[in-house]
Amino acid sequence: MGACQRVCNFDQDDVVTSHPRPTVLTVDASDRPGLVALLASAIAEANGNIVDLGQHTDVDSARFAARIEIAPGADLDRLKEQLSSETAVASFAWALHDPAHRQRIVVACSRQLHCASDLLARIDLGELQGEVVGLVSDQLDGEALANRYGLPFSYVPVGDDREDQEQRFAAAVEAMRPDLVVLARYMRILPAWLTNKYEHAMINVHHSFLPAFVGANPYRRAFERGVKMVGATAHYVTAELDAGPIIAQDVTRVTHGDTVEDVVRRGADIERAVFIRAIRLHTEHRIQVFGNKTCIFD
Amino acid sequence: MGACQRVCNFDQDDVVTSHPRPTVLTVDASDRPGLVALLASAIAEANGNIVDLGQHTDVDSARFAARIEIAPGADLDRLKEQLSSETAVASFAWALHDPAHRQRIVVACSRQLHCASDLLARIDLGELQGEVVGLVSDQLDGEALANRYGLPFSYVPVGDDREDQEQRFAAAVEAMRPDLVVLARYMRILPAWLTNKYEHAMINVHHSFLPAFVGANPYRRAFERGVKMVGATAHYVTAELDAGPIIAQDVTRVTHGDTVEDVVRRGADIERAVFIRAIRLHTEHRIQVFGNKTCIFD
Amino acid sequence: MGACQRVCNFDQDDVVTSHPRPTVLTVDASDRPGLVALLASAIAEANGNIVDLGQHTDVDSARFAARIEIAPGADLDRLKEQLSSETAVASFAWALHDPAHRQRIVVACSRQLHCASDLLARIDLGELQGEVVGLVSDQLDGEALANRYGLPFSYVPVGDDREDQEQRFAAAVEAMRPDLVVLARYMRILPAWLTNKYEHAMINVHHSFLPAFVGANPYRRAFERGVKMVGATAHYVTAELDAGPIIAQDVTRVTHGDTVEDVVRRGADIERAVFIRAIRLHTEHRIQVFGNKTCIFD
Amino acid sequence: MGACQRVCNFDQDDVVTSHPRPTVLTVDASDRPGLVALLASAIAEANGNIVDLGQHTDVDSARFAARIEIAPGADLDRLKEQLSSETAVASFAWALHDPAHRQRIVVACSRQLHCASDLLARIDLGELQGEVVGLVSDQLDGEALANRYGLPFSYVPVGDDREDQEQRFAAAVEAMRPDLVVLARYMRILPAWLTNKYEHAMINVHHSFLPAFVGANPYRRAFERGVKMVGATAHYVTAELDAGPIIAQDVTRVTHGDTVEDVVRRGADIERAVFIRAIRLHTEHRIQVFGNKTCIFD
Repeated sequence: MGACQRVCNFDQDDVVTSHPRPTVLTVDASDRPGLVALLASAIAEANGNIVDLGQHTDVDSARFAARIEIAPGADLDRLKEQLSSETAVASFAWALHDPAHRQRIVVACSRQLHCASDLLARIDLGELQGEVVGLVSDQLDGEALANRYGLPFSYVPVGDDREDQEQRFAAAVEAMRPDLVVLARYMRILPAWLTNKYEHAMINVHHSFLPAFVGANPYRRAFERGVKMVGATAHYVTAELDAGPIIAQDVTRVTHGDTVEDVVRRGADIERAVFIRAIRLHTEHRIQVFGNKTCIFD
Repeated sequence: MGACQRVCNFDQDDVVTSHPRPTVLTVDASDRPGLVALLASAIAEANGNIVDLGQHTDVDSARFAARIEIAPGADLDRLKEQLSSETAVASFAWALHDPAHRQRIVVACSRQLHCASDLLARIDLGELQGEVVGLVSDQLDGEALANRYGLPFSYVPVGDDREDQEQRFAAAVEAMRPDLVVLARYMRILPAWLTNKYEHAMINVHHSFLPAFVGANPYRRAFERGVKMVGATAHYVTAELDAGPIIAQDVTRVTHGDTVEDVVRRGADIERAVFIRAIRLHTEHRIQVFGNKTCIFD
Repeated sequence: MGACQRVCNFDQDDVVTSHPRPTVLTVDASDRPGLVALLASAIAEANGNIVDLGQHTDVDSARFAARIEIAPGADLDRLKEQLSSETAVASFAWALHDPAHRQRIVVACSRQLHCASDLLARIDLGELQGEVVGLVSDQLDGEALANRYGLPFSYVPVGDDREDQEQRFAAAVEAMRPDLVVLARYMRILPAWLTNKYEHAMINVHHSFLPAFVGANPYRRAFERGVKMVGATAHYVTAELDAGPIIAQDVTRVTHGDTVEDVVRRGADIERAVFIRAIRLHTEHRIQVFGNKTCIFD
Repeated sequence: MGACQRVCNFDQDDVVTSHPRPTVLTVDASDRPGLVALLASAIAEANGNIVDLGQHTDVDSARFAARIEIAPGADLDRLKEQLSSETAVASFAWALHDPAHRQRIVVACSRQLHCASDLLARIDLGELQGEVVGLVSDQLDGEALANRYGLPFSYVPVGDDREDQEQRFAAAVEAMRPDLVVLARYMRILPAWLTNKYEHAMINVHHSFLPAFVGANPYRRAFERGVKMVGATAHYVTAELDAGPIIAQDVTRVTHGDTVEDVVRRGADIERAVFIRAIRLHTEHRIQVFGNKTCIFD
C-alpha cells in the first residue's frame, strides 16, 4: 500500500445518501382475477409509481397477498379514497403504511437477556424502523438493561396466583400502547385471551428448530440426541404453545466437543438472528399470514 | 417404533400430484408509471389469473423488470395480441414462456467434469426444465460421460491456430441450435464475437467468489492467502473475462488442515451448486439483466 | 483482459501434485491418564511422525477417542506389534487404516435415485475413497442407473412375505462383501437382526432435520407446518427407526412460494450433501461412536 | 398443550452446572518426530489428563502446532518445570493458560459502532472470557457507548499531524495495558511500528470477503459489481493493509432489491459475527499463526 493510503482515512467509507423510503401498500384478499389490475390502476390514477411489487396467491387456500412499494410523490389521499370506495371495501383488506411511522415495541423478557439486549442495541444504532417503549418481566434481571437505555421497566413477578400475574402482565403491556409485543425469551406461557388479543402482533423466539423440541429444555434435549446443528424459530404467538405461524428459522453447527453450555451459547446467536429478522420483517410490513403460514416478501 | 411401522413401506412417501405449471410473462422496460396496471389489465382481459408476481424497478437506472406467473386457462393468444398492439410494442420488451417448452442446452467442458456430470445426472432425474442436446470439448475426457447418457460429443481440439479452434467450437455449438450454452469448466477464453452472439444465453461457472481471484488458479491462490472460505460464481459470459452479470454465488468453509487438493474438492461442491442454480433460474425465466447486474425473481 | 490471457488456456489450472496420504490410526477406549503418551510414544518408537491428531474425551461417559495421521515412512509392523502387546490389547481398541485401501460400498435404493446417482457420479470422478460394488433395490427403477456405471443390480422385490424379502435383501447385500452399506433412500424399514449386523457400517439418509419429522412424508409435513427451512440427516442405522447416531445434518431455505414439489426438490439437494459427507467421513475414518453420539474428527 | 404446561414456567430451562474449565497448553515448534510423545509424557508425569487435543503439522513449512486441554487437578508447577527443562526450551515455544484469567481488551473505533456495541453487550452478558478495559477513538461518536457500560473513553482526534495522532493513539492504548487490541471499524491505517508491537495481539474486522475489495468502500464496490453475497473478514493486523493472517470469514446473501444502505446493513451483521468469533477464538487460545496463515483449533 502506497503513501496515499497511509494518509487517507476512511471516514467517508460507504457513507451513502439515503434514498427516500417508499410508502408500502399491503393487501390480503380472497383470490379473484383482476385484483392486481385493480390495485395497480388505483395507484396509477393517484399518480403513484410502483418500484417494487411482490404478490403471491396460495392456490390451495385461494388467498391473495401483495406488498407494493410506491415511490414518494403519489397522491395518497386519492389512493385511499379509491381503495376505500364501496367495491374495494367489499372484497379485500388493505393498509397503507407511512414510511415515517416508527412502531412502538414492548419487550417481554425473563432471565436470559441476549435477545432483548441485541434488540435494544440495534434500535439505538438506528438499524430498525421502530422504537422500544418499555420492558416487562417476571424477573428483576432485565432492570439494569432497561436503565442502560433509559427505558421503563415493569416488574410483574409471579406469586401464588398465576392468573393474577397474567392480568398484571397484560395490563403492563397494554399501558405502553404497543404496535408490536416481542417475547425475548419470556419464559411463561401466555393464556389464549392474551395471545388472541395480539394476534399477528406478538412475536416469540423459541430456542429450537421447530417443530423439533417444542417446549422446555430444547438445548439439553438436542445435546442428548447428539444433533449436529441446533436452531431457533421466530413465530407469531397463538394459543397453542410454539405452534404459531413461523416467520424465520435458522441453524448453526455444533460439534462433539461442545458441552451443553457451548450449545446454549451457539444457539443464542441464532436466537438473536431470527428474532431480529422477524422484527425487521414485521416492522417493514413484509409478512402476511395465510392460516398458519406466513408469506414473506423480502 | 411399533409393528405398524415395521410392515409399512414408504413407497408413497412425499409423492405429490404435480400442480399444472403456470405460463410465465417476463417484461423488461424503461420505467414509467402505470406499467404494472397496463400489464395486469391486459392479463385480466385475457381471463388470466396472476398467481405470483415479482416486479422491481432499479431507481438509479430507471429500468423496470417483472416476472408474472399466470394460471393455466388464460386466453394466451388474446394476451399476445394485446401486448403486441402498437402502444405496447413501442414501450417495452416482453416474452410469454410456454411451461411445456424444454430449453435446449449445450454443455462445453474440458478436463474437470464434475459440473457437466452433475447437470447430466439432474436432467436425467427430471430435476430441471431443459434437455442437454450435446457436449463440446477441447479435450477428450468428456467423451465417456457423453456416451453414458447417449449424447453427442463434439471434440474440438486446439491446434496451432487459436482462432481456427474458436471457429470450429462456435460451429459445433451452433449446429446443436442451443437455447442456452453452459460453460461447465470449459477452460478456454472465448472471443468477443462469440460471447456477444450468446449474450445472456451463455452461463459460465468460475471457481472463486468473484471478484476475488479472477483468472487462473483461484484455489491455489486462495490456499496461499489462507482464506477460511472458498466460493464459486455463476455468471453470464461477456467479452471481459469473469466480469459478466453475476447470477449466483456461494461459499464453503475451508480449514488449516486442508491441502490444495482438499480446497479444490470442497470448492467443486460449490461450483456444482451455483452452476445448477443458475441454470435453473435461467430455464425458469427468473433472471433479468440490468446493465451488468441481474434481477433474480426467486 | 490483455492478449496474454487470450492465448493462454487454463488446462494446468489448479492441478496439484498429490501429497502421499498418511496412515490413519483410530483409537477407542475408556479414558485414563497417559493414553495419548502411550500412543504417541509407540508411534515415535516406530519412527512415525504425527502430522495431524484429533483427540477427545467425553467427560460424562469417560470415553476416549482419537484419530491420528502418521506420515508415510513409519515402521507400521513395529507399530502394530507395539500396540498389540499385552498391555495395550487389554485397555483399548485400535485400528490402523491403510491409505491405499478402497472400501467396498453397497448401495440400497428404491424409487428416488438422486442420492444413489450422486454417489455413483462422484465415485466415478474419483472424489471419494471407495468403490461401489453393487446396487440392491426393492424396485426396478435403479437398474438403468446401475447399468450406466456397469455395476451389478440386485432386484429384491417385496411379495407377500415381508420377512422373506428381508432375508433375500440381506443375502444380496452380504454376497457383495461390503465394508459399508448405504441406504440411498431405500424406503423399507430393516429388522433389528440386520441393522445389528452392520452396526456402525450402515448409513441412512433421512429427509428431515431429525428429530423433527421422524418417519414417513417429512416434506409434506414440513410444508403443512409452514417451516422456513427443510433439512436432511445422515446417521448410522440402528434398530430404532431414524434414531441412530447422527453423522451429518444440514438445512436449506424454503419460501412461501414453494409447492410441495419445490420443497422435495430443494430438500433433495440437502439429502445428497449430507449423504455424501457422511460417506466421506466414514471412508476417511473420521467418525467414532460414543453411545448414541458421534465424534467427528474433520 | 395441557394444564401442566400452562402452570409451569421455564425458569430452569437449559440451566446447566458449568463444568470446571480445563487449563490449555499451546505449543508452536519446528516439526520433529516425537514431539507429541514428549508433550503427552510430560503431562502424564504431572498427573494431568488430556481431555481434548488438536495437533497439526504444516508439511510445507514443517511447523508444528498443538492445543491441549488438561483436566483440572494436574500438578501444573511440575508440568511447567518439565516443559522448561533445558531440552524443551531449546526446541519449542509453549504457554500454559490459566482458565481463570480474563484477557484485557482495548477497543478502537470510529463512527460505525455496531461491532464495538455488540462486543460490549456480550462481555456484559458473560459470553466471552475477557473484559473490555476501555475504548479509544478518533471520533466522539463512541463516548455515549462507553458511558453506557461505565468504561473509560479516550478521544484521540486527528489534527494536522498524522504521526502525532498515531503516537497519541498508541499511548492511549498502551496505558490500558491490553492483552488484545481490537479494531472495531477503526477507520485509520496504522503505522508498521504500531502493528508490529501488537503482532498477533491486534484483530481487525474488514467489511469484505478478503481478498475481494481491499481498502475503502467495499460495500459500494460490491453493490456496483452486482455480487449476490457480501462478506466480512477478521484478521490479525500486519503492516500491510488488510493482508494479515485471516482468522474468520463469513458471507450473507444480498438481492437485486437491496440498496447500498441495505447492503451495508446486511454486511454489518456479518462483521459482528466474524469479529466476535475471532475474539472468542483468540481469548480461548484456539489460534496459532503459521507465517501468514492461521491454524484454528475449534
